Amino acid sequence: MLKKILIVYAHQSAGSFNAAAKDAAVKVLTSQGCKVEVSDLYAMKFKASATAEDVTGTVKDAEHFQYGEETMLAWKEGRLSADITEEHRKLSEAAVVVFQFPMYWFTVPAIMKGWMDRVLTLGFAYTSEKRYSQGIFKDKKAMLSFTTGSHESMFSANGINGDMNVTLWPLQNGILHYCGFQVLAPQIFWPPPHIPSESRCSMLEAWRTRLEGHASFCLNVEPDVTTVHWCDCSH
Amino acid sequence: MLKKILIVYAHQSAGSFNAAAKDAAVKVLTSQGCKVEVSDLYAMKFKASATAEDVTGTVKDAEHFQYGEETMLAWKEGRLSADITEEHRKLSEAAVVVFQFPMYWFTVPAIMKGWMDRVLTLGFAYTSEKRYSQGIFKDKKAMLSFTTGSHESMFSANGINGDMNVTLWPLQNGILHYCGFQVLAPQIFWPPPHIPSESRCSMLEAWRTRLEGHASFCLNVEPDVTTVHWCDCSH
Repeated sequence: MLKKILIVYAHQSAGSFNAAAKDAAVKVLTSQGCKVEVSDLYAMKFKASATAEDVTGTVKDAEHFQYGEETMLAWKEGRLSADITEEHRKLSEAAVVVFQFPMYWFTVPAIMKGWMDRVLTLGFAYTSEKRYSQGIFKDKKAMLSFTTGSHESMFSANGINGDMNVTLWPLQNGILHYCGFQVLAPQIFWPPPHIPSESRCSMLEAWRTRLEGHASFCLNVEPDVTTVHWCDCSH
Repeated sequence: MLKKILIVYAHQSAGSFNAAAKDAAVKVLTSQGCKVEVSDLYAMKFKASATAEDVTGTVKDAEHFQYGEETMLAWKEGRLSADITEEHRKLSEAAVVVFQFPMYWFTVPAIMKGWMDRVLTLGFAYTSEKRYSQGIFKDKKAMLSFTTGSHESMFSANGINGDMNVTLWPLQNGILHYCGFQVLAPQIFWPPPHIPSESRCSMLEAWRTRLEGHASFCLNVEPDVTTVHWCDCSH
């Protein structure tokens, strides 16, 4: 059986560096024998806000609506909205999840936070007993792959923004590891708009090389990677 | 002139503890002579996702759409969507901004992240020269006020979730302080659903007392706070 990879992708433009990074991942991982699915959140017009509409039928307690409890119940009873159920399927089947996004305000864009809020359902993705090292997704891997708006020096331990590892803590520990994911080192693309075109190409090349090194993501299929140049990616 | 306070509020239910905390703040601060505005994000069906629709008229570069650049330009030219412009007005007029929310996945819910992504527009809320101590909102104060799903011990430095101060860093430093806000100590309501009703009442009482102590939020109007009990708030 082919290993499946899910890429949760959030950029508005097919001409963006994020799109190029996503496309490169699809190409490399597919060539290695993985089956890759992409949740293109903006293209899907993915609903970001956690509301009672995520539950079909009657909610248990409309007056004191509690999203976590209501959606857990709906999940158990097969009453979650179709878009959440479909993301559950993708996530269940995936061995690896890659989140590809431009960092907005030191974390993921709201549309991707909405994916996390709505898809990582209580019961499905975690319980109070099953979290962190005992987490439900402990056999899965996850990675953040993102572009920044600031230079690397600003995110050093002495940088004006503080250490990037601290910035990523709530995402990597609080969300991914909480659900059990083995968190792979983040792929950080320092600000594509502020560097020369050749540097953007080098970053993409390094990304492809890194993914090729992750043959363990997929079955042991002989790599057959087509070299595609993304140097025309202007952002 | 009355000082204005903006409460950005995100909970789906008027029967929630978050609603009670918001209502208590409105009542206390109004009694102290402030003018309080509330952005009730779920009630407003606030759009969370940052898209080209936030710009009216033609975008500069549709093929390589860059949200930050396009919305800065639209802001300068008065072409931002009406909902963003209205939040800009509220934010401009406010001396203090309180964010009231249930913590979702170690940060704000997606709908509130959407407020941050869309309202804290490049140019309006920050520039590369005007940030942190030189930030545009350096004469304003901001505070996070939120409920948790975990007990306090889990968020201690040795707790399973790690130190709450680290969890809050991207929000408090990366968003609020970045825009210049003087960040007030957070108001943390440890998990209301997991504690006795009397403890919930005590937390609300402490919140009211804290707000009464912030007379500097408002003009020096003699406090005339009506004591309202929220002990009937079951969540």
